[in-house]
Amino acid sequence: MSTKAQAEGGQRRRGPGRRPGRRPGAADTRGEILAAARKVFAAKGFDKATVRGIAREAGVDPALVHHYFDSKEGVFVAAMQLPADPGEVIPRILDGPREQTGFRLVRELLTITASPQAREPMMALMRTAMTNEQAVGMVREFLMQAILGRVITLAGVSPLRAEAAFAQLFGMMAMRYIVKLEPLATVEIDELAEVIGPAVQRYLFDD
Amino acid sequence: MSTKAQAEGGQRRRGPGRRPGRRPGAADTRGEILAAARKVFAAKGFDKATVRGIAREAGVDPALVHHYFDSKEGVFVAAMQLPADPGEVIPRILDGPREQTGFRLVRELLTITASPQAREPMMALMRTAMTNEQAVGMVREFLMQAILGRVITLAGVSPLRAEAAFAQLFGMMAMRYIVKLEPLATVEIDELAEVIGPAVQRYLFDD
Repeated sequence: MSTKAQAEGGQRRRGPGRRPGRRPGAADTRGEILAAARKVFAAKGFDKATVRGIAREAGVDPALVHHYFDSKEGVFVAAMQLPADPGEVIPRILDGPREQTGFRLVRELLTITASPQAREPMMALMRTAMTNEQAVGMVREFLMQAILGRVITLAGVSPLRAEAAFAQLFGMMAMRYIVKLEPLATVEIDELAEVIGPAVQRYLFDD
Repeated sequence: MSTKAQAEGGQRRRGPGRRPGRRPGAADTRGEILAAARKVFAAKGFDKATVRGIAREAGVDPALVHHYFDSKEGVFVAAMQLPADPGEVIPRILDGPREQTGFRLVRELLTITASPQAREPMMALMRTAMTNEQAVGMVREFLMQAILGRVITLAGVSPLRAEAAFAQLFGMMAMRYIVKLEPLATVEIDELAEVIGPAVQRYLFDD
């Protein structure tokens, strides 16, 4: 549900049982928090940004930030309009049958990013990280905490191997969606997952 | 020798038996051809650019372009100050013992790009390709012809697998040199080649 809400432009609030527009003005508050968060993350990076600092910038109580987004990571995912929350997706993928984890990971990533609307903010963030010294720090810190740190802990893999797997996935996204190499850019998701999944599998489990 | 000359800023002429400055004014002609080439490649892309068109833009005879750079690909490598000519490097790597090809490829790429001066123009091209619609076409066409086409032919690998291998290498470069994930950014070349080489090996030879 949160993924869908974000794909629809980040206009709706997250969380079970809440509906957009139930409380007048709530959507604006949420938008103001996200605008403040983008400012704070850009200025301080991910590590040094705090929910308290974001709340102060937005002129709201920190409890309201937690209410909408749970955590600093949740604020980042919503503020950058990422197509999915790594905190939900990664444990789910790593929790399935072990021998197909690489395949599942690649397929999930390609599915999440299949529609241009869903992936565009993430592509924009990738582009910015490639060209902007300050943005790269913010993205690096988020990657380490929200993605790589989780994979390292949950799969019991070394940091270097987790990063090699991530490098493979990043390169795949860049070649499919930005450089648009054919046939990689238009091949079916399952076919691409069959080719690249085993490489990711090997990094994570050495098989 | 050409690699060294380019690493020193592309001021010197390439080719066996020639030395910089032997003929007065030659360095300027070479520089003018390169400036013209950058203009033509940017405007037309790699496929549609011709040695004849570059010569016309530079106001010189096409034979002079061939004399300095051999081929259109040679002009591109020099104009973009790439740290090595794929036409020399790729056949050499693929020609060695088969079972270590992936390792050799990763190690060679990391060695060629080890110094910031040698890799910076290539990094700039990667960044531009990520953000500029016109540049990405030029880079894509060069990749297909000069790098992937060669690997597809020489290693007898499918285009999709060659592109998956390239995506892995591109992602590795981006994470090591641009995003600077630790430990991937500072680990020794041989250690990184031990981790990533087997993935490239599997793409190329399915083992």
